[in-house]
Amino acid sequence: MCCRSPIRGGLGGERDPLRILPRSPEEIPLDPDLWPYLAVAAGTLALLLAAMRARQVLAAPHGSDRMREIAVAIRQGSMAFLRREYAWVGVFVLAMAGLISVLLPHGRPWGAIAFIAGAALSGGAGVIGMRIASAANVRTAEAARRGGVRQALPLAFRGGSVVGFTVSGVALAGFGLGFLAFTKWLEVDEPYRVLTAMALGGSSIALFARVGGGIYTKAADVGAQLVDKTESTIPEDDPRNPAVIADRVGDNVGGVAGMGADLFESYGGALVAPIAFAALNFGGRGYLGAAIMFPLAIAVLGMGASIIGSFLVRPTGNNLGAALHRGTYVAVGLTAAGSIGPVHWLFGGAPDIDELGLFLVVLIGLAVGLAIAQLTGMFTSDHWRPVKNIARQADTGPATVALAGIADGMRSAAYSVLVVAAGIVGAYWAGGMALASGGGIYGIAIAAIAMSSTLGITVSVDALGPIADNAAGIAQMSPLPEETQMATEALGSLGKATAAVAKGCAIGSAAVTTLALLFTFGAAVGLSAVDVLHVETMIGLLLGAAFPFLFSALVIKAVGRTANEMIEEVRRQFREISGLGDGRADARADYARCVGITTSAALWAMLLPGALTVVLPLAIGFIDVEALAGFLAGALVTGTLLAMFMANAGGAWDNARRLIEAGAYGGRGSGAHEAAVIGDAIGHPFKDTAGPALNVVIKLMTIISLVFASAFL
Amino acid sequence: MCCRSPIRGGLGGERDPLRILPRSPEEIPLDPDLWPYLAVAAGTLALLLAAMRARQVLAAPHGSDRMREIAVAIRQGSMAFLRREYAWVGVFVLAMAGLISVLLPHGRPWGAIAFIAGAALSGGAGVIGMRIASAANVRTAEAARRGGVRQALPLAFRGGSVVGFTVSGVALAGFGLGFLAFTKWLEVDEPYRVLTAMALGGSSIALFARVGGGIYTKAADVGAQLVDKTESTIPEDDPRNPAVIADRVGDNVGGVAGMGADLFESYGGALVAPIAFAALNFGGRGYLGAAIMFPLAIAVLGMGASIIGSFLVRPTGNNLGAALHRGTYVAVGLTAAGSIGPVHWLFGGAPDIDELGLFLVVLIGLAVGLAIAQLTGMFTSDHWRPVKNIARQADTGPATVALAGIADGMRSAAYSVLVVAAGIVGAYWAGGMALASGGGIYGIAIAAIAMSSTLGITVSVDALGPIADNAAGIAQMSPLPEETQMATEALGSLGKATAAVAKGCAIGSAAVTTLALLFTFGAAVGLSAVDVLHVETMIGLLLGAAFPFLFSALVIKAVGRTANEMIEEVRRQFREISGLGDGRADARADYARCVGITTSAALWAMLLPGALTVVLPLAIGFIDVEALAGFLAGALVTGTLLAMFMANAGGAWDNARRLIEAGAYGGRGSGAHEAAVIGDAIGHPFKDTAGPALNVVIKLMTIISLVFASAFL
Repeated sequence: MCCRSPIRGGLGGERDPLRILPRSPEEIPLDPDLWPYLAVAAGTLALLLAAMRARQVLAAPHGSDRMREIAVAIRQGSMAFLRREYAWVGVFVLAMAGLISVLLPHGRPWGAIAFIAGAALSGGAGVIGMRIASAANVRTAEAARRGGVRQALPLAFRGGSVVGFTVSGVALAGFGLGFLAFTKWLEVDEPYRVLTAMALGGSSIALFARVGGGIYTKAADVGAQLVDKTESTIPEDDPRNPAVIADRVGDNVGGVAGMGADLFESYGGALVAPIAFAALNFGGRGYLGAAIMFPLAIAVLGMGASIIGSFLVRPTGNNLGAALHRGTYVAVGLTAAGSIGPVHWLFGGAPDIDELGLFLVVLIGLAVGLAIAQLTGMFTSDHWRPVKNIARQADTGPATVALAGIADGMRSAAYSVLVVAAGIVGAYWAGGMALASGGGIYGIAIAAIAMSSTLGITVSVDALGPIADNAAGIAQMSPLPEETQMATEALGSLGKATAAVAKGCAIGSAAVTTLALLFTFGAAVGLSAVDVLHVETMIGLLLGAAFPFLFSALVIKAVGRTANEMIEEVRRQFREISGLGDGRADARADYARCVGITTSAALWAMLLPGALTVVLPLAIGFIDVEALAGFLAGALVTGTLLAMFMANAGGAWDNARRLIEAGAYGGRGSGAHEAAVIGDAIGHPFKDTAGPALNVVIKLMTIISLVFASAFL
Repeated sequence: MCCRSPIRGGLGGERDPLRILPRSPEEIPLDPDLWPYLAVAAGTLALLLAAMRARQVLAAPHGSDRMREIAVAIRQGSMAFLRREYAWVGVFVLAMAGLISVLLPHGRPWGAIAFIAGAALSGGAGVIGMRIASAANVRTAEAARRGGVRQALPLAFRGGSVVGFTVSGVALAGFGLGFLAFTKWLEVDEPYRVLTAMALGGSSIALFARVGGGIYTKAADVGAQLVDKTESTIPEDDPRNPAVIADRVGDNVGGVAGMGADLFESYGGALVAPIAFAALNFGGRGYLGAAIMFPLAIAVLGMGASIIGSFLVRPTGNNLGAALHRGTYVAVGLTAAGSIGPVHWLFGGAPDIDELGLFLVVLIGLAVGLAIAQLTGMFTSDHWRPVKNIARQADTGPATVALAGIADGMRSAAYSVLVVAAGIVGAYWAGGMALASGGGIYGIAIAAIAMSSTLGITVSVDALGPIADNAAGIAQMSPLPEETQMATEALGSLGKATAAVAKGCAIGSAAVTTLALLFTFGAAVGLSAVDVLHVETMIGLLLGAAFPFLFSALVIKAVGRTANEMIEEVRRQFREISGLGDGRADARADYARCVGITTSAALWAMLLPGALTVVLPLAIGFIDVEALAGFLAGALVTGTLLAMFMANAGGAWDNARRLIEAGAYGGRGSGAHEAAVIGDAIGHPFKDTAGPALNVVIKLMTIISLVFASAFL
């Protein structure tokens, strides 16, 4: 056991490890210790903005009684699902908190408390966001009825921004408070590990929300679609379809609550990684404090920029997408420019610290985010060749559609990983230029938080998708006039496109964050090397790489099984409720039973994949820490690739179908359309269940390893 | 640079590294230096057996003039493809030989010569095997006409065993001669690296044969099938279908020549890895010579056992599969029991060498092979749940069929990797028990050659698939009586089932071989560690893991493009050759043009994926050796997983279709059948193009790195 620190200086960062900030506190325009308070303040500001937007949403007219009735059914179903899900997850959270208490005596009881707090905040943010989203859907439909897309888009975005700023506000204020509590106010051993436990709390909720919600949403979707084909003549969104409400509930619990919890944990993980890494590696150096505060500063900056950006989203021309993206671009630009401030205030003037390097790291993080967004857009939007090609392949049937989507999904995954790899090299180089030994890895961690810093606006845009989709469903079920249905449909298309891009970005940022956490884990367990040429590491690598395949398989099969239960129930209702199958106007489907059955099935189905995700790293860690590091590395690489592949293939199939429905290759009803619908159906569990869940899996497994690092030794 | 050797003794092998064989040569019953001569002898024996079987095949009656006419067209098309492929590949081989000469001055000129020899032997074995296979197909059809399956099976197997024993005989005799030439007869620097260059020659041919042949076969298949649906009323195997001969040619060039070259290189890689590892690591130890001879001894043993096993394949009961498997089981059993001999003769009596450990290593290698065969069978045969489940999902349409196959393919890949990992741990432990430091890795390498040792019989069984398939095609095209067609069809089903299992085994053995080669590479470049926590390694790992995704995407897309060219040509013929589309009896399709066009398209399409496979490891190696090791590890894990996933999903879809065609879920013509056919079509490029090619890719990239190791430093 010897010789090399886990961070090699080969790409930079070989300077004197001991340096002192040269300036006395009075010379620094902003006291570094203020940043956590500013984080709490910025988080609170975001929550205020969310509250204001929520009021605006709730004040908008909610349409006819029929529309409200549907909206209420959706909301009740969604809340019923979440209540039951959180009851199950609550048991897990308490058990895990107990385990943390037993195995990590150092931080007792704060580790367990932080874990529970993280879980509660993540779950709470999801619930609040979802309540508003399920109020926004009906109002968006009504707005479309009154003023078309131009009136509906701002309302849907407002609903989305409630979700976005609730999630990011809770996260920033929560982690800011946690930081203050554990490092300043309380006497806590190993405060940074306790903060990591808080991130783990968020991750746990995210895992079950993504898996459970993801299984629910796709099972309901598939169930509702099949009714259309096999059991009766009524269309998918007809109010007499018993599965129709469950389908809409799925959009909420998977698309809003699941995504909210997921992004809460991304943010938390990205924030904690550089803090923990600096605390573990920069001890005794003059810039330790600055390095710990810097990620908080970037997060504060990103939040401010997101808030400003969110005010710029309003349709001015005919290009609705441009209106949405303007906000994001402005937020990214402001964060990039503004980061000069914290870099200078925290690190400025020290003779040996290269400010430019730290500034570059932030720029690289933001640029990688934009590059992945661009790449994802090229592979999932119908303006580019891949989607057009899939649509063209529909002419020769479903098999060629499936193969084209799979091939381009794989290609896009490889390219995305190339972008991520380039970003890592850049951030490592720039970070090494800026700080002494360890600066390269710190740079990677800072790039990760930079990628996540504009989460407020990103989630706002992403959450617009399910709101618009729900609005379209309500418009069809009510039913509203043809014109309104077309408006909500256009909004839904826009939402799908932005959601696909947001997914790619989420996976990319998860990869960088996980990498930073993995390096931090290596430092925490003090491994001199995680050597691929050791059999332990290689076995870990093989098993870790295999796990995302197993996980995806379990989740995809769970969707199929749950969908079957839904189909059985729908068939029963058509058989037993008189007049339902024939479409008699007075026949009423029993939505609640469909919702209940799917809820139970989805919750049971999430147990095995969820449990494996938590148990495997712990079990391997107690056997061999080096094998665990290999396992995490293996899961990171294949998890990222599979998640990208599935998300992008799913997004591309979805948009190829829409392209044909808009009239290409024969339009609706043609053979090409039938083939494209089949491709889209294959893509559903790819892009909305397995892909996003893998995204959480790789982060969670690394965070849990980091939290329990000292117990393994 | 310090402290730990690339092999850690954590799982065993911590004893004194310097030991001397205790017995004087006269005490050993078999002079260790005899083994390479025995290898040449055993290889020659296998070739004699192949020649005898070839005579038997050629002496069998070849049916009517019409049948012979078809068979000649297939043979001519196959040879035309191979001639053009080898012309292209010849340029590559010469360029590569030049590169070896320039960059590796030590072994000059023997490295380049060995490389060319390996390429020539691999290509030659493929050509001979294919010539006989394309003679066996028509005779198998005729045998089925005369005596049904019971007469056709032995003939088809005889044809397969010509392929099997030609490939394995050429490989064993060739490497045996190479061993003698480079280590004994000639004055060669670094003889083991020169031997590795010979393996690389075989790999290069295998790569292009697998990729080019794989693209050709599936493009022709898809093209021929589509004719059926879109252009006319004639069925896929109708003689008037212009693509029908190209389809059959594809079975030969992809299924026989491609597989032969692939298995030649597997065998070569598995043989070279333990020899090179021992030479690099056991220098100065008394058992160095024994350790170098041991893999040759295992290969000799396996060849003898395969020859004996091949005489036991004859249908005695009604279970045709059992007849085929009997030969394999006997060969494996004989190899296992017989390995006590070489273990004792080579290592016996030394106080510190544990003979049991070496014996266990061989058993573990053989057991892993059988376990993977069993597992692959469970996921691809219609006797087990996964295939039954896929067939059941056909009831609800193509999307559920696709998802069920994808999920179970992924699951099977994860389980297979679990089996491989268990085998690696076992072999490492047993090897470490047997020999001092380094014994663990040596054990893994020996397990790999044990897995490949019964190649003779395995390939014989595997090559039966395309022969039977071709016979079925000829029976349909001639056309032979209904009864005969059913008999050849049954034989074809059997061939598909055994081919699926053989593919799984090939991928599993490729994984273990590649791992052994990777460890050898680590020793060759003298890396103290390939540390995942170094950014260089991690970047390599990410890019390496991404490459199989990119490669698969390129290959799958190439199949689509090539199929399109085929379809265009078929359409042209229907348009321009009068009476063809209406099925007029005197209309003659222009087969040769179809064959020629597909040949060109497939050859062009193989260039990019093939070139990347060769160029990337070289380029990365010259930048950073540690990054290259990470790259190889990444490619190994995702390459194995993707290859297993694709091969097994494809096999499962294929058999689900056959299950339905045999009458399940409505049988032929039902909606379920239509859905299953679509699943099968998705599986074609998975199981016959991308999957088997990946298998070669991961080995080739590691062998090329090993050959150029000294140039990188």
